[in-house]
Amino acid sequence: MKNIITLILFLTTFFSAFAAKVDTLEIRSIAMDKTYKAAVVLPNSYTKSKANYPVVYLLHGAYGHFRDWLKSTPNKMLVHDLADQYNIIFVMPEGENFSFYLDSPVNKESQFETYITKEVIQKIDKTYRTIAKKNGRVITGLSMGGHGALYLSTRHPELFAGAGSMSGAVDMGGIRNRDTPEKINKLMEPVFGPEGASQEVYDSHAVIGMINKIKANNIELIIDCGVDDFLIEPNRELHRRMVYAKVNHDYTERPGAHTWEYWENALLYHVLFFDKIFKKNGTAVK
Amino acid sequence: MKNIITLILFLTTFFSAFAAKVDTLEIRSIAMDKTYKAAVVLPNSYTKSKANYPVVYLLHGAYGHFRDWLKSTPNKMLVHDLADQYNIIFVMPEGENFSFYLDSPVNKESQFETYITKEVIQKIDKTYRTIAKKNGRVITGLSMGGHGALYLSTRHPELFAGAGSMSGAVDMGGIRNRDTPEKINKLMEPVFGPEGASQEVYDSHAVIGMINKIKANNIELIIDCGVDDFLIEPNRELHRRMVYAKVNHDYTERPGAHTWEYWENALLYHVLFFDKIFKKNGTAVK
Amino acid sequence: MKNIITLILFLTTFFSAFAAKVDTLEIRSIAMDKTYKAAVVLPNSYTKSKANYPVVYLLHGAYGHFRDWLKSTPNKMLVHDLADQYNIIFVMPEGENFSFYLDSPVNKESQFETYITKEVIQKIDKTYRTIAKKNGRVITGLSMGGHGALYLSTRHPELFAGAGSMSGAVDMGGIRNRDTPEKINKLMEPVFGPEGASQEVYDSHAVIGMINKIKANNIELIIDCGVDDFLIEPNRELHRRMVYAKVNHDYTERPGAHTWEYWENALLYHVLFFDKIFKKNGTAVK
Amino acid sequence: MKNIITLILFLTTFFSAFAAKVDTLEIRSIAMDKTYKAAVVLPNSYTKSKANYPVVYLLHGAYGHFRDWLKSTPNKMLVHDLADQYNIIFVMPEGENFSFYLDSPVNKESQFETYITKEVIQKIDKTYRTIAKKNGRVITGLSMGGHGALYLSTRHPELFAGAGSMSGAVDMGGIRNRDTPEKINKLMEPVFGPEGASQEVYDSHAVIGMINKIKANNIELIIDCGVDDFLIEPNRELHRRMVYAKVNHDYTERPGAHTWEYWENALLYHVLFFDKIFKKNGTAVK
Repeated sequence: MKNIITLILFLTTFFSAFAAKVDTLEIRSIAMDKTYKAAVVLPNSYTKSKANYPVVYLLHGAYGHFRDWLKSTPNKMLVHDLADQYNIIFVMPEGENFSFYLDSPVNKESQFETYITKEVIQKIDKTYRTIAKKNGRVITGLSMGGHGALYLSTRHPELFAGAGSMSGAVDMGGIRNRDTPEKINKLMEPVFGPEGASQEVYDSHAVIGMINKIKANNIELIIDCGVDDFLIEPNRELHRRMVYAKVNHDYTERPGAHTWEYWENALLYHVLFFDKIFKKNGTAVK
Repeated sequence: MKNIITLILFLTTFFSAFAAKVDTLEIRSIAMDKTYKAAVVLPNSYTKSKANYPVVYLLHGAYGHFRDWLKSTPNKMLVHDLADQYNIIFVMPEGENFSFYLDSPVNKESQFETYITKEVIQKIDKTYRTIAKKNGRVITGLSMGGHGALYLSTRHPELFAGAGSMSGAVDMGGIRNRDTPEKINKLMEPVFGPEGASQEVYDSHAVIGMINKIKANNIELIIDCGVDDFLIEPNRELHRRMVYAKVNHDYTERPGAHTWEYWENALLYHVLFFDKIFKKNGTAVK
Repeated sequence: MKNIITLILFLTTFFSAFAAKVDTLEIRSIAMDKTYKAAVVLPNSYTKSKANYPVVYLLHGAYGHFRDWLKSTPNKMLVHDLADQYNIIFVMPEGENFSFYLDSPVNKESQFETYITKEVIQKIDKTYRTIAKKNGRVITGLSMGGHGALYLSTRHPELFAGAGSMSGAVDMGGIRNRDTPEKINKLMEPVFGPEGASQEVYDSHAVIGMINKIKANNIELIIDCGVDDFLIEPNRELHRRMVYAKVNHDYTERPGAHTWEYWENALLYHVLFFDKIFKKNGTAVK
Repeated sequence: MKNIITLILFLTTFFSAFAAKVDTLEIRSIAMDKTYKAAVVLPNSYTKSKANYPVVYLLHGAYGHFRDWLKSTPNKMLVHDLADQYNIIFVMPEGENFSFYLDSPVNKESQFETYITKEVIQKIDKTYRTIAKKNGRVITGLSMGGHGALYLSTRHPELFAGAGSMSGAVDMGGIRNRDTPEKINKLMEPVFGPEGASQEVYDSHAVIGMINKIKANNIELIIDCGVDDFLIEPNRELHRRMVYAKVNHDYTERPGAHTWEYWENALLYHVLFFDKIFKKNGTAVK
């Protein structure tokens, strides 16, 4: 018995010595006058190193929260493993049920574009040894978070060297076709208020309509979607428009639907993609 | 001076201790009554382990030879690094200038389907500690080798758990539109003899025409092509037909053309894809 | 009263003088040992002329019969009007509920390829002053009849100068995905017997798989489908394969679904298309 | 000799009695302080009737002029024949070499949007017995004129019940990729002045970017392009965006390139399409 306890203690020590570590950080938003939590996964090497680390911002989907990427993937150690394997810091901020990661024109309590691009990034760069500039910072996410990653990186190209989208809600305007106007308005109330918004306002926030800006930014992009995902057509349309406009990007279709099995797999490719960017930029930690 | 020599000796020993190792193997073909060389990259762990290793067969393109993947990628250690990182054996067999990896109906000296699927695999499995069966064996390649990997795995699904194609010549019938019949016949003389072949014969060897067989096999596939590649349209057509027929596969378009920069990048994703297969099959080496 | 009768007689005479005329013809099938009816619409000019007339064969869809094109279009005089306007004979033969216009390999009573291409055409050319050869004969149809027109013209290019398909069931193999195997087998029993057929057999009868033959034939083709039709994807796939293989054809997508409103409109374009062929071939009647 | 003169006189009278008639009209532009000619083809029935006639506005392409449709089609009587067959008035206004049928923001002498939609239409409706409103007026054209027809009808949906484009330059922004900036600026100087315009300005005039407006207008559209036309890709992209956005339209691809043979054929289908609109609207002349 004593031996078993010793063994357990040993193993605990052993793994804590080698595995990535999670911080739960409170990040104040002045814009929203609210405090949200964020999860931060530091690679195992972090504490033993003096290097500055590149950062992947990893966004959750609708009806989701900051901890999703740590608790919903089939492999619960997925993000930890990737942090260790690539020596990358992962930051998983809060995006609320339906913020769409934008600054609501009507609701002061939903200002997530400002929150992520100013308040979260600033806090992270002050708290950790990060590469606190574009060439060591990227952003990706799933579904609403895929939209968020492309939306924020397109509007703030000075912040991100690369961006990704998995099963992204890339055509925000299309959401209006998915249910009755009443239900959609209810759903989007945090963003557009109880009256909802016009098609024009929806369209103006859709990634699919920002091709020219994306092309001008020329940041590195990785976009994918499962062929059985209910969002495959908007993603195909985004890809076709990018091909037509000669916008550099990686685009993948693979088996799968809007599931965590899909996203667990997809994240492996996104991080490989980002690691190449960091290596090219000289911001990777060996 | 003596110190420098010591240092060099030390470094040599150090790297030979940690880096993957290349064998150049002579593999006899009874079918062709000829002997061709193959390059085999063993992961560093191989000699210290007793495990059986999964194998990636890696095919070269037209006008190429078995050593291409070791000498033409910008990073000359690419295959070595991947062997070490994933604990995989890479086998790079000979496919000659224009064998298209098939058994020539007219030329006994060009029987590369038989060579690869019988003679090479047998020799490799006898020479090394491999997982000598389907669930630990995959195949990929570039251009003519992308065709080869899909062609061989489609016709021998009992041999491979997965297959890949980078910038693949997936529509062999289309080659006839690329130059004058005389030049194409000359080019393909090793395969179809000085008379050339009819469109029907070309088409019958084209991967793009084997969708039903590919679907029935249901082996895992990863296919990609650069948007500036002269072979992008056949690859798009292959993808569309697979989507239409609901054939499971990963398909990626990304920036780039028919270049080694493209293939160096693409191989990273193929090996990640294969590693997932090996892990799922329990044939990966930890 | 006498006046009304006079008026009716007058109107009858008047319209018989100006409107196209319908014959219902019995056409014996030796192949099936059965007699089926066909409707033949002769243009008004026919009786007053000595010219030989070009012929449009017009096929009905599944669950349909020879008289459909005369009784189901919103404008009941559609075929008559077109016969008069273009000086064309329309022949509407029987195709039964589910013959798919092919020769059943198991059922002697369902030999509609032979029936249409030998028995019907022969009878028509013997009964009427037709252009009794390819350059004055075309074929089109809707749904199963769109398949039929493409299938028969592809296999008998010596008979037809042009062919059309509206909302065509161009991927016969795909029918197996539309319901349970039992129901599909039941449906197709007249063609493939109570056991049904393999996917290979279905595929071998699908127009979508005959691209090379269609290309070699090089007869003029007009193909269309409504964007809300349940058959739009097979039609898009057929078009894409034709574009990829550089097969000459007219392809149109327009608003609409699998309805007689759609087909009434589509027929106008098909006849315009065929009229151009007849004019070019010198087989149109002025 | 006398007999021949008699014959000629007779034939002249005969044909003027039965064939459509061409007027060459001078139409003053106050906006441009200039007078341009327009060709007007009246159907033969016009002089003998008191009816108001529907009008097809027919635009020429770049480097072209108002008389093109009368002198460049293989069949020189094409427009006349169609006028007679369908009882339609055709108006062929001037669009100059490179006006793109828009109001130049810098050049007062190139105000063709105003010219066509105000000055030409007003003059035509004052001069002839037209249906002087939307439900009897449509517009189509070739190449630059295809752009023009879609551009003007999209921006002035109150004027047109339908619009068409043959081989249309539907992505005006794309013109900048067709040659050096210097040459494109030179070409477009009448529109954008010697300095040229930014990509944004080009894009804002491109039909391909007006999908939402086109959808809201919901006027009837017929769009086509030859598969060998250098403008096929922009037309495919327009079609795909319309399909994606569920915009009603007829879209056709057919054999052919940027030639008068193609347009002569295409016009037949456009007029058939417009005739259906006029019949539905009750504005067709029997």
